[in-house]
Amino acid sequence: MSQQLQERTQQDCTNPPAKFDDLRVLFLNCTLKRTPVLSHTEGLLKIAQSIFEANGVRTNIIRPVDYVITSGLEHDLSQTPEWDRDDWPQIQKEIDACDILIIGTSVWLGEKSSVCNHVLERMYGYTHQFNEKGQYRDYGKVGATLITGNEDGVKHCAMSILFGLSHIGYTVPPQADAGWMGEAGPGPSYMDPGSGGPENDFTNRNTTFLAWNCLHMARMLKDQGGIPAHGNVSEVWDAGCKSDFDSPEHKR
Amino acid sequence: MSQQLQERTQQDCTNPPAKFDDLRVLFLNCTLKRTPVLSHTEGLLKIAQSIFEANGVRTNIIRPVDYVITSGLEHDLSQTPEWDRDDWPQIQKEIDACDILIIGTSVWLGEKSSVCNHVLERMYGYTHQFNEKGQYRDYGKVGATLITGNEDGVKHCAMSILFGLSHIGYTVPPQADAGWMGEAGPGPSYMDPGSGGPENDFTNRNTTFLAWNCLHMARMLKDQGGIPAHGNVSEVWDAGCKSDFDSPEHKR
Amino acid sequence: MSQQLQERTQQDCTNPPAKFDDLRVLFLNCTLKRTPVLSHTEGLLKIAQSIFEANGVRTNIIRPVDYVITSGLEHDLSQTPEWDRDDWPQIQKEIDACDILIIGTSVWLGEKSSVCNHVLERMYGYTHQFNEKGQYRDYGKVGATLITGNEDGVKHCAMSILFGLSHIGYTVPPQADAGWMGEAGPGPSYMDPGSGGPENDFTNRNTTFLAWNCLHMARMLKDQGGIPAHGNVSEVWDAGCKSDFDSPEHKR
Amino acid sequence: MSQQLQERTQQDCTNPPAKFDDLRVLFLNCTLKRTPVLSHTEGLLKIAQSIFEANGVRTNIIRPVDYVITSGLEHDLSQTPEWDRDDWPQIQKEIDACDILIIGTSVWLGEKSSVCNHVLERMYGYTHQFNEKGQYRDYGKVGATLITGNEDGVKHCAMSILFGLSHIGYTVPPQADAGWMGEAGPGPSYMDPGSGGPENDFTNRNTTFLAWNCLHMARMLKDQGGIPAHGNVSEVWDAGCKSDFDSPEHKR
Repeated sequence: MSQQLQERTQQDCTNPPAKFDDLRVLFLNCTLKRTPVLSHTEGLLKIAQSIFEANGVRTNIIRPVDYVITSGLEHDLSQTPEWDRDDWPQIQKEIDACDILIIGTSVWLGEKSSVCNHVLERMYGYTHQFNEKGQYRDYGKVGATLITGNEDGVKHCAMSILFGLSHIGYTVPPQADAGWMGEAGPGPSYMDPGSGGPENDFTNRNTTFLAWNCLHMARMLKDQGGIPAHGNVSEVWDAGCKSDFDSPEHKR
Repeated sequence: MSQQLQERTQQDCTNPPAKFDDLRVLFLNCTLKRTPVLSHTEGLLKIAQSIFEANGVRTNIIRPVDYVITSGLEHDLSQTPEWDRDDWPQIQKEIDACDILIIGTSVWLGEKSSVCNHVLERMYGYTHQFNEKGQYRDYGKVGATLITGNEDGVKHCAMSILFGLSHIGYTVPPQADAGWMGEAGPGPSYMDPGSGGPENDFTNRNTTFLAWNCLHMARMLKDQGGIPAHGNVSEVWDAGCKSDFDSPEHKR
Repeated sequence: MSQQLQERTQQDCTNPPAKFDDLRVLFLNCTLKRTPVLSHTEGLLKIAQSIFEANGVRTNIIRPVDYVITSGLEHDLSQTPEWDRDDWPQIQKEIDACDILIIGTSVWLGEKSSVCNHVLERMYGYTHQFNEKGQYRDYGKVGATLITGNEDGVKHCAMSILFGLSHIGYTVPPQADAGWMGEAGPGPSYMDPGSGGPENDFTNRNTTFLAWNCLHMARMLKDQGGIPAHGNVSEVWDAGCKSDFDSPEHKR
Repeated sequence: MSQQLQERTQQDCTNPPAKFDDLRVLFLNCTLKRTPVLSHTEGLLKIAQSIFEANGVRTNIIRPVDYVITSGLEHDLSQTPEWDRDDWPQIQKEIDACDILIIGTSVWLGEKSSVCNHVLERMYGYTHQFNEKGQYRDYGKVGATLITGNEDGVKHCAMSILFGLSHIGYTVPPQADAGWMGEAGPGPSYMDPGSGGPENDFTNRNTTFLAWNCLHMARMLKDQGGIPAHGNVSEVWDAGCKSDFDSPEHKR
């Protein structure tokens, strides 16, 4: 190891570039398994959690499958005649309070879990609301995803999850996906003895990079008061200000 | 319209929140059609281009299909015995010079164009290289996508393109996808007379938001010198600094 | 119209090529809306249903969202400590009884509904079971999908649904997807007055082709006693018969 | 092993249920590597090939990357002013001559190769043509896919490929996808010594099932003269015969 690299390594290991203790991260663990059943995905989430906590960030892991979440796009489906109960508003409150949202999921048939699909669908139901600047309500938050499967599909699930988050207003930092899966075929799951998952250097590195990139981006956004409200406010657009938009009729 | 909204609208329409004239945006128009054949996708790209140019940003639209791009992951395939010529390094140089990369594509069978797939594949071939801070080489850049089809698939193509960019180091700002397609079934393409595409208020609004969110994010990243190089440097990780990573063996 | 075409048209309109009245088709309408709320997707399913019924096929439309379906891969989750009730076994019984399964879904964020994801997940939970020939239990059935959205994503949802069905043993006939969506942006949903959906000739033609291709394929499979049980039986594979499989060690 | 199973195993290993020597299978190996560079995917294709050949089926493996294939939807782009040469018509001729088409691909960024995307795009360019019965030209053919990557994405690539084939008229038999990938992270590719790929029992079983299901389905379709031409002929639909389609206006 060169002396320069040695010094840099020591530097990086001991000196975070900023304070992060005003930030909050929410993990939505979209496992199919209710507490207290072992969730393999939670094992991976905890690696990221430990990085956040070492930097003073408040963290929370929720399993949506522990709640009664009903189907539909309304904010609170218990207010509709078809459903008696809807716990989603409690989860939405946690989402609203976080700076960084990390969605964890297992993989089935190459797809994210149905719980994960459900979570994104319910979040989508709130996207006609705006923040105090008039932007879509999730502007200013940072999103990422962590995925485990004992088989194939990490990148495919990540595509869908990160797109859903970005489309509704999240910022997606570099390398915002990480995951683990074993070789093709049946085999141990992430937390099973001998899986090799928790020791996988590639997964651990990517999970670390993901956590830090979320921190850097959330720091930057919080320090700037979020995304500037110019050129991205629906009410202002509807009022006729197109912010340098050049009507195509003039161009043809 | 309330007086408050009226004032805000006037304000937004005339006062950009920052200067952007040091930024460069590259559009890669992944149409299947060589210049000078009409590209419908280019019509949509030009709407975003006009917003960038109104703010002094230098822009460039390239059609990769105009070049001879060979298949493989090497940097310059003309150096391999299998290929005589490879224009990709010219395009990569343009990518390296930009702050914002916007990938345009048409949709076929619900998928991005093969040219678009090819472009992402070639970019992927450079991802073992690092920037001067030791991060993956595309860290600090902003990515987004604009898509047209006379049928279905905008969101699906966006998932794949934005994931590819994010995975190799791009930051994806809020609402980084926009597009246009007509009703199910055959019908006019975007630039065809009567398509309704260029006048579609939803598409125009989303394209405007996309352009501004790219500007805001690129401004923020450039002013900060990119993503801080802490917790995301491969060489440092390999040297043993895990940046608050807590080995899972200790936790179980 | 040529005389030949005229004759053929008359012929096709009046003479089905076989009897189909021993077949059963199940529609799983994966709408988010509980009965009796209007489901736009059901409007499209009914078009296919009318074709099946005109040919004497027994049909059934079920909305899984009307049931209490719990999360997990077990056959009956009410048998686990975490859940009190699980209606899935009732739906699985209907699936087991059908020859043709058609999955309907709406589109949210470019993805199939969470109910649809849930249905495929629960079906996947039964795939370690075998039919009386020792093949995966769903061999011999035919699968297809019908999709509506007031926006983009029909083909993407179809990819996922048809793959899920194929992967667990269904046969997918030609052109097994059809759907409707409007032009980019907000607008009427399929059953809304003036949507143009129910009159869309492209959608109606594709839905008709889909229904007939399901009938043809189901007829063929039923007449042949399903897929021949040779080279596709797990127990026989595990017992050492590789059915002309040539171990790659011999080849290298 | 029970005696019954033993007998069945012996039976299956020695007695194919039909003759298949009139069938032709085409493998399109969509590797990025030109002949004679080693293609890992080809290693997997050869396993399926040996099963077909043991049953007298004529087989052919083509690497499209060995040809000059241009971009666009026209049949022969060398006839357009923008391109000098287009080898695609040669490949299309091979496709037209086969009963079973198996598309092989490697995985990059979680996606099929750009060559694979290109192949499906060019095939799509022929879909306005009809077979002699007036059905879409690829009706009656059987499609499947085999995929290798040293990382994640087999099922995702399979979704896209099988959908593309089904949408243009192919029949997809049960379990028409198989593949191999290693554990998350860098590691040996399929044909590299010690990869474990060629010995992977799960991959070998799935590849065998895939080959046999293609054979069974192709046999069935050939013996029946393809998919019956009723309810799926565009010209007849356009002439006004809706084959039991019940106009939705009557139903509302």
